[in-house]
Amino acid sequence: MNIEDHNGTTVVRRVGDYKPKPSFSTWLVGRPLQTADSAQQTIGKFIGLAVFSSDAMSSVAYAPQEMLIVLAAAGVAGYGISIPLAIAIVILLAILTLSYEQTIHTYQNGGGAYIVSRDNLGEIPALVAAAALLTDYALTVAVSISSGVAQLVSAAPVLVPYRVLLAVAMVIFIMVVNLRGIKESGSAFAIPSYFFIIMMVLTVGVGLVRYLALGSLGHVIDPPQDLAFDIVQPVTIFLILRAFSSGTTALTGVEAISNGITAFKEPRAKNAGATLIMMACILGSLMLGITFLSHQVGVMPSEEETVISQLARTVFDSRGVFYLAAITSTTVILMMAANTAFAGFPWLAALTAADGYLPRQLTYRGSRLVYSRGIAMLAGVAVLLIIIFQANVTRLIPLYAIGVFLSFTLSQSGMAYRWYKSGRLKPGEEVAERGSKLHHDPHWWVKMVINGLGASVTLVVTLVFAITKFVSGAYIVISLIPVLVLIFLAIHRHYRSVAKVLSLDHYGAPPQISRNRVILTVAGVHRGTLAALRYARTLSNDITAVHVSIDPVEAEKIKQKWETWGDGIRLVILDSPYRLFLEPLLEYIDDIDSQRQMNDIITVVVPQFVTPNLVTNVLHMRTADTLRNVLLNRKGIVINEIPYHLD
Amino acid sequence: MNIEDHNGTTVVRRVGDYKPKPSFSTWLVGRPLQTADSAQQTIGKFIGLAVFSSDAMSSVAYAPQEMLIVLAAAGVAGYGISIPLAIAIVILLAILTLSYEQTIHTYQNGGGAYIVSRDNLGEIPALVAAAALLTDYALTVAVSISSGVAQLVSAAPVLVPYRVLLAVAMVIFIMVVNLRGIKESGSAFAIPSYFFIIMMVLTVGVGLVRYLALGSLGHVIDPPQDLAFDIVQPVTIFLILRAFSSGTTALTGVEAISNGITAFKEPRAKNAGATLIMMACILGSLMLGITFLSHQVGVMPSEEETVISQLARTVFDSRGVFYLAAITSTTVILMMAANTAFAGFPWLAALTAADGYLPRQLTYRGSRLVYSRGIAMLAGVAVLLIIIFQANVTRLIPLYAIGVFLSFTLSQSGMAYRWYKSGRLKPGEEVAERGSKLHHDPHWWVKMVINGLGASVTLVVTLVFAITKFVSGAYIVISLIPVLVLIFLAIHRHYRSVAKVLSLDHYGAPPQISRNRVILTVAGVHRGTLAALRYARTLSNDITAVHVSIDPVEAEKIKQKWETWGDGIRLVILDSPYRLFLEPLLEYIDDIDSQRQMNDIITVVVPQFVTPNLVTNVLHMRTADTLRNVLLNRKGIVINEIPYHLD
Repeated sequence: MNIEDHNGTTVVRRVGDYKPKPSFSTWLVGRPLQTADSAQQTIGKFIGLAVFSSDAMSSVAYAPQEMLIVLAAAGVAGYGISIPLAIAIVILLAILTLSYEQTIHTYQNGGGAYIVSRDNLGEIPALVAAAALLTDYALTVAVSISSGVAQLVSAAPVLVPYRVLLAVAMVIFIMVVNLRGIKESGSAFAIPSYFFIIMMVLTVGVGLVRYLALGSLGHVIDPPQDLAFDIVQPVTIFLILRAFSSGTTALTGVEAISNGITAFKEPRAKNAGATLIMMACILGSLMLGITFLSHQVGVMPSEEETVISQLARTVFDSRGVFYLAAITSTTVILMMAANTAFAGFPWLAALTAADGYLPRQLTYRGSRLVYSRGIAMLAGVAVLLIIIFQANVTRLIPLYAIGVFLSFTLSQSGMAYRWYKSGRLKPGEEVAERGSKLHHDPHWWVKMVINGLGASVTLVVTLVFAITKFVSGAYIVISLIPVLVLIFLAIHRHYRSVAKVLSLDHYGAPPQISRNRVILTVAGVHRGTLAALRYARTLSNDITAVHVSIDPVEAEKIKQKWETWGDGIRLVILDSPYRLFLEPLLEYIDDIDSQRQMNDIITVVVPQFVTPNLVTNVLHMRTADTLRNVLLNRKGIVINEIPYHLD
Repeated sequence: MNIEDHNGTTVVRRVGDYKPKPSFSTWLVGRPLQTADSAQQTIGKFIGLAVFSSDAMSSVAYAPQEMLIVLAAAGVAGYGISIPLAIAIVILLAILTLSYEQTIHTYQNGGGAYIVSRDNLGEIPALVAAAALLTDYALTVAVSISSGVAQLVSAAPVLVPYRVLLAVAMVIFIMVVNLRGIKESGSAFAIPSYFFIIMMVLTVGVGLVRYLALGSLGHVIDPPQDLAFDIVQPVTIFLILRAFSSGTTALTGVEAISNGITAFKEPRAKNAGATLIMMACILGSLMLGITFLSHQVGVMPSEEETVISQLARTVFDSRGVFYLAAITSTTVILMMAANTAFAGFPWLAALTAADGYLPRQLTYRGSRLVYSRGIAMLAGVAVLLIIIFQANVTRLIPLYAIGVFLSFTLSQSGMAYRWYKSGRLKPGEEVAERGSKLHHDPHWWVKMVINGLGASVTLVVTLVFAITKFVSGAYIVISLIPVLVLIFLAIHRHYRSVAKVLSLDHYGAPPQISRNRVILTVAGVHRGTLAALRYARTLSNDITAVHVSIDPVEAEKIKQKWETWGDGIRLVILDSPYRLFLEPLLEYIDDIDSQRQMNDIITVVVPQFVTPNLVTNVLHMRTADTLRNVLLNRKGIVINEIPYHLD
């Protein structure tokens, strides 16, 4: 305990020694953590690559496949186009990597699209970025988990009927893990990430060696035929662009490192930047390798067996140990990709909520120091998506990536504008912004061009995506984002108006209350009523007992008892011909209220039965509860509840 | 307004001139009625027969059919047994009619099984009767409506897939009609009841004339074959008894008149008795006639077409006007039978609730002067039964009638015991009981034998029913009734203990409160807090402001603002390391509570945000609500909620 005295006001400070008790939820989620336990541990490039790249790298598990599914409509002629498309996507990756390198060096405290847009483009673009990202985090979970289940099901087809169930179970598992709070810096991440990288490099490597050097790479044995089209469509520009859009989902997750720069060891910008480049190289190679080999071995895109599964069993010649290792590592990395969304979504939601655009509750950290509400919210939305789209990756893909590319565009435009502003500053001049400090950069022109290029190409991709995927699902996201932005703005308006109403600026101290008119509601004369009467007497000398009478016999009894027990206090009996309870009472209160003077206050004293348990509650009318809820909405009335315990 | 003065206490009496406003529910249910509108209108024998016999007479629509369905298992050999069984049931009806004649003359204010058992057998038998009757009212609705739908579907087979939906819609329709309040004495009842009687007499009459006099009655053309059994069972005693049990469902509803004696014109016992005998004659004739003719024309019991439908189209030679009239009248009478349960159930529930065995709310009459809650409860249970048993009469029948016969047994045993008591009184001696007056009856011995016979035969039927239908569903009712009785007793115990706790007998006036320790919870320092502080100052000089601190920065801000605005009142900051809000506060209150003197009271003042609408509510933490709910359960604490309106 610590007692201080400030300007005549005593302030006592003490630490509650309340320790949460063990319960089912502490067992499930882990023992509660003190706020002071929150620690920061930094990581190097090796672990950093594992932690931040699962989202990006795991997308090679579905991006080539979704590209091939679109091309399948054009038959054999179509498949060949996958290789130039993969090259285009890798070029796009290179541009993005360069752009984000610059973001990382500028926003060393974390430079997500929301922060960059907020600093450089203003409120609406920042909210658009937030809406796009929140939507895409939910889709990341749905797509990654659905793809993970698809891998699992390829290896064990007996599980096909349980796809949706498996996917939901995985989401719940990842939710619980995240509610427990995972150390992002944990080296536990390194093992599955590197396992995946090794298995993919091995698959692609062995495949290339067998194809180029040994010439022993055969074709897929007994490929699935469920997507074979009877009528072959011509190869149109539209088809190519649709396939390209599907392929660009490989680039989702590239921004992850720029959000998490603070997790890196110093010099953090340099380390984070190097990690980004490493990640891009691996991702690009795998994308190219998988697409190339898939074409060579004659993979048939299918909903029954994934491209990775067909490729792996062809490269390793059987469903043996290597095949199983490749599939397992892919499933695990996809689950980890979903997991990164569980870090990103609650963090961004809390950031947006702290700015007043989402309910404040989202900024509150639960017993394990994680944003529990955001985590639960994300899991709920993801489960909903999985159920609606039946854990089908191909049906989810048209919704996915458009938000990512929109946020890329906003983030890169913000950076480009920032360089322009930087160019207009004098050397040595410095301007503080909310997320960073702005100063003159001699190479501002080059940097502006790089980020401008990033912004332009991602804008083009966003438009291509929106147009080619509009009917098959993109329209949902395109219409959802403005709705979300409007909701953010409405919430912000509400909080601002509340703050204004509550503000003490230019506020004189309220005048003293001169008279307290007390109304005591009497349903019957018993010990509970007398306890309330006793309390009412401490409030004021102006007390009126009011009984709403439905049954005249009962009213007569109350009148007689009140004469004995009512302490001489005036009793008003309100006859209610329609057997209503609340309305006549409210009408009476209105009467009193209309005579109220300035600085008068009306207090309604309600004797409140408290029964020992919930079951017995239903045996009582609970009119006190209803009365409270109604009276709370009337101005100038204070409600005093005098509990009377029945046990 | 009316002001009186009694022993120094002013009592003001006024009639609320609040008139309920039109709304969807007043449109649906009708304009509210004043309590004074409740009027009593009496009826003669002609209308009385129509009002009280729909339940009993409508059972000829399913009783013969259910008997035949059981016998169908024994093939052609079985059907013949239906005629002696029908005769046995008619004999049973005669015994019951004699017994109830005596009940009617004794209990001229209404002599349901609950009242008779309560007067003569004690609490537990009365509760068993109540449980049995309440269960059976619900089953009456389910069985009658399901049978009504079956008739409808027989005439219009296209409706077969919508059976359950139709049945649920009918229950809801009858519920709404009853919530509006129907005049039981309305001659509206007479038309459909007499229409049914005429159509049935016509069907049976034409059938008999064609069979006996003209010899022109043929066989059912193209009878349904869905219940044809491949393996024919032998005719066993068990099978016969099962069929008999099914047939006894014809007797449900016979007790209706004894419940409703007060509705009859004076001399009401005589009128009611005569009506009972008339009803028994019609019911008995129809039961015999339908069973006999069904056998002659070769009706095949079926779930697709009812016995009534097969019989009517054979007697009238086609699906013409007479056939349609017969089916329509049967459907309507079955709906009216369900309707009588909607009068009986809420009335019995209110009676039981008034005795303290069911929640008191059931005694409350709604805006239309009907027991709305009982009506809604019955509809809910009936809909549940219809959905569970898929509106299938054959599956519902094993649950039905056992409760009716159990209540017959209790009621008749009560009457028999009553005659025994009457025989032991001296002539002219009179004993007042709750439901009637008991005096010496010179013929007590004869009357005791008659009621004793009624009790014995209904007991035998109850046992036969319980044994033969146990597995197919009776076990549900047999185990439900004792559970219900235990619930009734538990509710009674609760109300008794509450009355004891609240009783003012031997109660001294509570001592004055000597000190009020006020705790003001402070989440932030704003206008709402100051309004609460202003109110707190009227309560006591002993005020402590308490802030539970999750965020130290926030706590520091509050401390500084409090120094300016806190009026010198002590501020306690409770640091909450686990970011819990309630627990540290409760711990603090416990501390204060442990120092509390006799006649001290603790008041917790909670500033309560009130947002203009529900949507904005979710944007606030609503900790005040949670706090209130928790504090209500702690003794010796009063909660003052100071609303602060944000609009």
